[in-house]
Parts: sequence; C-alpha cells; structure tokens
Amino acid sequence: MKCLIIAAGRGSRLERKGLSKPLVPLLGKPIIERVIRNAANAGIKDFYVVTGFNGERVRKFLDSLAKDCPIRITHITNDEWDKGNGLSVLKARGYIEGTFILMMGDHLVDPEVIRSLINRGVSEGEIALVIDRDIGNPLIDINDATKVQISNGKVVRIGKDLESFNGFDAGIFLCTPAIFEGIAKSISEQGDTTLTGGVRCLAEMGKVNAFEMGKNFWIDVDDPVALEKAENSLLADLKSKKSDGPVSTYLNRPLSIRISRYLVGLPITPNQVSLISFALSVCAAGLFMLSGYGALLAGGVLAQAASVIDGCDGEIARLKFQESDYGGWLDAVLDRYADAFLLFGLTWHAYGTLLQLKAIFAGFMAIIGSYMVSYTADKYDALMRHRLSRGIRIGRDMRVFLVFLGALLNQPFAALAIIAVLMNAETIRRLFVCRSV
Amino acid sequence: MKCLIIAAGRGSRLERKGLSKPLVPLLGKPIIERVIRNAANAGIKDFYVVTGFNGERVRKFLDSLAKDCPIRITHITNDEWDKGNGLSVLKARGYIEGTFILMMGDHLVDPEVIRSLINRGVSEGEIALVIDRDIGNPLIDINDATKVQISNGKVVRIGKDLESFNGFDAGIFLCTPAIFEGIAKSISEQGDTTLTGGVRCLAEMGKVNAFEMGKNFWIDVDDPVALEKAENSLLADLKSKKSDGPVSTYLNRPLSIRISRYLVGLPITPNQVSLISFALSVCAAGLFMLSGYGALLAGGVLAQAASVIDGCDGEIARLKFQESDYGGWLDAVLDRYADAFLLFGLTWHAYGTLLQLKAIFAGFMAIIGSYMVSYTADKYDALMRHRLSRGIRIGRDMRVFLVFLGALLNQPFAALAIIAVLMNAETIRRLFVCRSV
Repeated sequence: MKCLIIAAGRGSRLERKGLSKPLVPLLGKPIIERVIRNAANAGIKDFYVVTGFNGERVRKFLDSLAKDCPIRITHITNDEWDKGNGLSVLKARGYIEGTFILMMGDHLVDPEVIRSLINRGVSEGEIALVIDRDIGNPLIDINDATKVQISNGKVVRIGKDLESFNGFDAGIFLCTPAIFEGIAKSISEQGDTTLTGGVRCLAEMGKVNAFEMGKNFWIDVDDPVALEKAENSLLADLKSKKSDGPVSTYLNRPLSIRISRYLVGLPITPNQVSLISFALSVCAAGLFMLSGYGALLAGGVLAQAASVIDGCDGEIARLKFQESDYGGWLDAVLDRYADAFLLFGLTWHAYGTLLQLKAIFAGFMAIIGSYMVSYTADKYDALMRHRLSRGIRIGRDMRVFLVFLGALLNQPFAALAIIAVLMNAETIRRLFVCRSV
Repeated sequence: MKCLIIAAGRGSRLERKGLSKPLVPLLGKPIIERVIRNAANAGIKDFYVVTGFNGERVRKFLDSLAKDCPIRITHITNDEWDKGNGLSVLKARGYIEGTFILMMGDHLVDPEVIRSLINRGVSEGEIALVIDRDIGNPLIDINDATKVQISNGKVVRIGKDLESFNGFDAGIFLCTPAIFEGIAKSISEQGDTTLTGGVRCLAEMGKVNAFEMGKNFWIDVDDPVALEKAENSLLADLKSKKSDGPVSTYLNRPLSIRISRYLVGLPITPNQVSLISFALSVCAAGLFMLSGYGALLAGGVLAQAASVIDGCDGEIARLKFQESDYGGWLDAVLDRYADAFLLFGLTWHAYGTLLQLKAIFAGFMAIIGSYMVSYTADKYDALMRHRLSRGIRIGRDMRVFLVFLGALLNQPFAALAIIAVLMNAETIRRLFVCRSV
C-alpha cells in the first residue's frame, strides 16, 4: 500500500523559529515524522510526500528519516503551494497508480484507523473518507473543521460552512485515481483548487464512502492551541498502561508523565533513563547502609524518586517511537537489581539498629519474595489477561513505595516484614490460581 | 484422519502375569497406550482398535484411556485372532472409509514419522508403507523382522525370508480401502491370511509406495529383549534435553534417569517429585545453618541429591505423557525458592564461621546473581536458539554443584564468592550479547 502525504502549505499559524509547520516539534518529534511513523506502524512502507513552502528543509529532514526507518520516501514538489491543497494531490498523478492512502501532513491519527481503512478497501472509481461522528469531540476546532453530511454511508455534502452536518472530515482517505479526476473537474468547472472541492465533485456523484472511525484518536494540528491539545492527548494516553499497579496509577505515573514531557525535548534515550533510575536506586541503597534517620529518610525519598523516573523510560520510548524489546528487557533486569540493592540496604539498616537476626531473615524473605513476584509475573499475566477483574496488582511500584514508607516512618524492619509477607503470599497465591485455571 | 490399530494377537513371548501383550507395561505405561498416545501427539483423534485374545480386558483398559485423553476409541472384535493378522485388518472394513493410518499395537514409533506420513498422502487405490532403510539398526531383530525390497520408491517384494532386501517394514501404513482388497485377494488366491500377504498382492501390482522414515525411532516390541531395548531407547532419549548444562549432562542426568526408571512404576506424579526435591533442598539449607563441618557436608550431599532428583519430574512427565505447562512452571518457581534457601543457608554457615561481613555480601550477591541468571534465561535462550555454538550453559545444575563442592571442601565462603561472580558476570554478559543481536 502506498501513502501520499501533502505537506506543502505554509501553516502560518504554527510557524516557529523559521521552521515550516511539518517540522514543528510535538513532544520531541516533528509533526510530519509522527504522521509518517504512525502510518509505518500501520504497515505502510512506501511514502510520497508533496512539499512546497520551505520544501528544501522538509525534504532534507525526510531523507534523514528514511534512513532511520525501513521505509521509502519519494519527494514530489509543488511550487504552487500558496494555492489550494488540491493541487498538491494532483502533482502525485503519474507517481501513484491503483489504490493508495492519502493523508494530511498535519493530521495525527491512531494507526489502528489506518489499518482498518486499508482492510475496508474501496471500489474502482470511488474513494473512502475517514469520518468522526463525535460532534462534541473536544479536540476539534469547530470553526476551522471541515464538516460533512453523511447519508446511507455516503458523504453527500462537504465544506467548512455547512449549516447542517453530522460528522467531520478527519483528513485521511483511501483513494483510487478517481480523486485526481474529481480535483481536475473541480478546478475546471468551479475554479476550486482545494482537495475539499475535488471531494465535493465526487460526493455529488455518490462516489465518496464514509468510513467511521469510532472513538479513535485524531487531531488536526493547525495552531498552537491544537498543538497543546495534541500533546496533552498523547501524554494522557501514557496513563493507560494496563500493567500499572495502584501506586503507579495514582502517584508515579502522573509525576513521571510530567518529567517525560520535559525529557522528550532532550537528546536522551530511554535506555539512558533506565540507567539513571538504576543509579539513583543504588545511591538510595548506599544511603540506607549509613546509620541514622537522616540517611534513611534521604534514601527513602531517593528510592521513590527513582521509582517515578523508572516510568519515564517507557513513556519516552512510546512518545519517540523508540520502543524495543531489548529496552523493555534491560529495564526489567535493572529493576530487579535495583529492588535487591534497596532491600539489602534496608536490611542492613534494620539490622544495624535492631541488632537482631530477625532483620536479616525478614530482609532475605523480602528479597526472595520480590524476585518471585517478578519471576512469576509473565506467566500469571498471560493467564489473567482474559479475566475482567483481577484485583490489585502487586508489583514493583508498591514494593518501592513500602520501602519509602518504611524509611519515612523510621520502621525499616516493619517495611521488610510486610514486603516479605506480601510478596511471598502473592507468589503462593499465583501458584494456586494458575493451577486451578 | 482415522487410525486403525491391530492388537488382537496373543503375543505369547511377552505374556506376563496373565496380561496380554498390549497391556504389558513399558516404563509405567502399557504398550498399547504408548502407541495410541504417540499417534494422538501426531494429531489423530479417532481410533479403531481390533482386539481378540484377552479382548475383554484390553477393551476395558482402552475405555478408561479414552476418558483420560481427548480421543475416541471404537472397538472392533476379531474372534479369529489365532489366524493371520490380515483378518484383523479385514474386520475394519465397513468401519472405515477413505484414507487412514494403520498401525500395529506393538510397534512404537516417533510421532514425527506419523505426522510426515499423513502429510505425504497416498493416491486412490494405493497404500504407503513406512520403511527403515538402516539395515544395521540395532533395535531390529533381523530374524523376526519383515524385510522389503524397494525399487524406484515402490515396494516390489516383502516377506520375512527375503534373501536380498534393502529395508524393513516398520509396521505403519497410510492406507486406502485397497488394503482390504489386497488381503481378500491374498486369502482367496494364496490362502495367506497375513497382512504381509495382502501387502504382497498390492506390491505385485506396483501399488505399495515406500515411505522412508530416515533416522527416526521405531521398534517392534515382540519379546523381552525388544522390551528392554525399547525401554533403554526411551530413557536414552531423555538425555537429549537441550537446556542441560555440563553438570546435568555428565552427572545429574545419568543418575536421575536411573531413578526415573524406578519411579515410573510407582503411582507418583511429576509435581509430587518437584515437591520432594524442594523439600530435600529445604532440609539441606537447614543443615547448612547448623555449625560444624559434618552438618555442612551432609547439607551439601543432600543439596546435590535434590538437584539430581529435580531432573526426575520432567523425565517422568515425558515418559508418562504427563508434561504440562503448569508442571514446568511449578518446578521453576520451586527451584528458585530452593536456590535462595540453599544460598542463604550457606551464607549463614559462612558468616557463623568467619564472622566477617564479606560472607553476608558474597551470599547476597550469590542470591541476586542466581536469580538474575534464571530471570534472564528465557529471553536469552529465545535469542540464542538459532546459534549453533553457544558455549557452556550456566544454570542451576552448576550452581548447586558449586554449593556441593563448597560444602565438601569446607569452603562455603569461596563457593558463595565464585557463584556470585559467575552468575552476575553471566547476567551482564547476556545484557551485552542480547544488545548486539
């Protein structure tokens, strides 16, 4: 499947520091890169990008992007970028045959929508347009949006100034070469050089199918307000990680997302964030091994901070399209070491204070139990995936929070004992639950 | 695919305690059960078994077997079991239409052979016979075996007394109803009621295709010598587990196989064996925590014994067709607890002797390292699966052996230090190796 992206316009409402709109960064990545990588995630490998205003710089950026990803990008130049965007589409005539995806260089959309649109298919001589039926969608600027009237699955009217409408044009199409004919007709008959004009011509002939996108995310990043809305949506989406326990959900994740928002602008990799979090945990363990409440408290705060930052690696990886199996694995392995060091440090502190062997025992059982919960997590999660309710997830977030609380309240032994009981009980519970499934 | 199994004969050379041959146990499971479960492993669900001598008991056993497995068994009775075995096959006429697998109730074969035979297929009016071309196969009783002469992929001659031959009839067929006609013709024209007679008639018409089984395992369990050969082959096959490290390969596995050979005859489940091994490790850890070389040595020997027995659960599961994901997981989880207890016990002993904190440190790092090697094993193995050479595998077998050596040589601290260095170095090595792959 080929994909045509039009990114020739000036986008004056978003010009920043002389950058043209496609290159404006959105959480660390230019908008056009997000559009292309989303489509690549949906399985598209062959891109045609129409550039115009400030085209030289955009093309240079796209060339470096194509080296990074397993995709091909063909440049199409539109010197008439100051006229309607239908001309940009027309320039692709001769480059693309058959069915293709058409996207706007400033519309972000969930890759799932692209995938289903491709699966839907389109008949010869027709096109399909992705439609958002949610009239109250807060991400849409109602004054600027292109409205549509749908009837019996067909787009019957389209325009920015429709008086009655029942959906929005989301700017993603599955096209046949009919789109070129529609635009050519719109220009010759109406003098209308916009893409919307071309779509209107086809709609009048009943050739525009409405493809409803449901509740999936999309946004037209047209001005600073939309840019901020887009950033907030992408950040909010990070909260939906299913493996988050209660401490993650209500404490760590809200904080880590704020930190990630800042970090995505820096040239720092997710693996480097994992290593920083690990180093902080090692420092915290070192503080635990000193005597006195001051050191204990400082270690506890540092441990909890490390746990918060431990969420950032995955967030940054998602935001910057840098997710990898290796990264996830490295993070997990470092977390296990960090857990063990923290608990060993706390054990040391508890024994130094109490001078009783029960501290050593509790610490040992806490370390074992923590490992066992992590060791059994994959199997248990795989088994529980299809269950609707599974209660509270006991994991690293809760473990480190208990360490933090133990330090804060100057009760290292109690913290170790609670972790030991909780983690080993959870492991044994998993053994029984999985047996009966 | 249906499967016809003939098990009507008396098999006088293997009669034991009044049991008829199909019910004679081979490593804890009756021969006929092994034949059926192997075929079930190859994907067959619908069985037709011809019984004759002592048929009542065999049918009763098969009924209970069909309740245990997701298979269907239809009984066919042959009262003329004292005549040629071709009559047993003929009794199935009317029960089976189309293509089917025909097996002998006393021939064991690798399920892989059945799978490839089904994939091969057979033309209307023909049959395919599985052939072993290894004339020197030590599992074959050359005097009793049915020989074949193959030419251009066809069986041209067959019989026990062929003077020249280039293969053996392995007793597994992919049949069309042509087999019934062949046997009927053999009876009416030659008065020969054997299956071999029927095959000979078809062979003379060029209708018997030779299916070469390569180096796969098969054996005709006809007498006590063959029974012992079959048992030894199944036990030897247990040695081929790819995840075995050097201590497993050269010490634990040879011993555990001897123990499993004994245990398969008892009503003990693999999970029970896992629990016994775990309990022995806990006892060993308890001995470590006592003072004195005697306790240390006893603990070391017990730990190594537990490690040997730890191999038996998987072996028994394979021999008794009781392998399960849960069983493997339970074993792994118990092993992790056992590792931790053993190392904690050894740490305790070392600290009690040395009274130096380095013992606690070494013990802690040994426990962490051991867990990390287990925690990273799945990912690492998945990655290394396609590599031919991967050097020595560092795993539990080596860990417990080092514990044993440390106890034997009265050097618990040295053992902990070596385990700590080895296991953590291996974990870090894996992190780097996986990164570059």
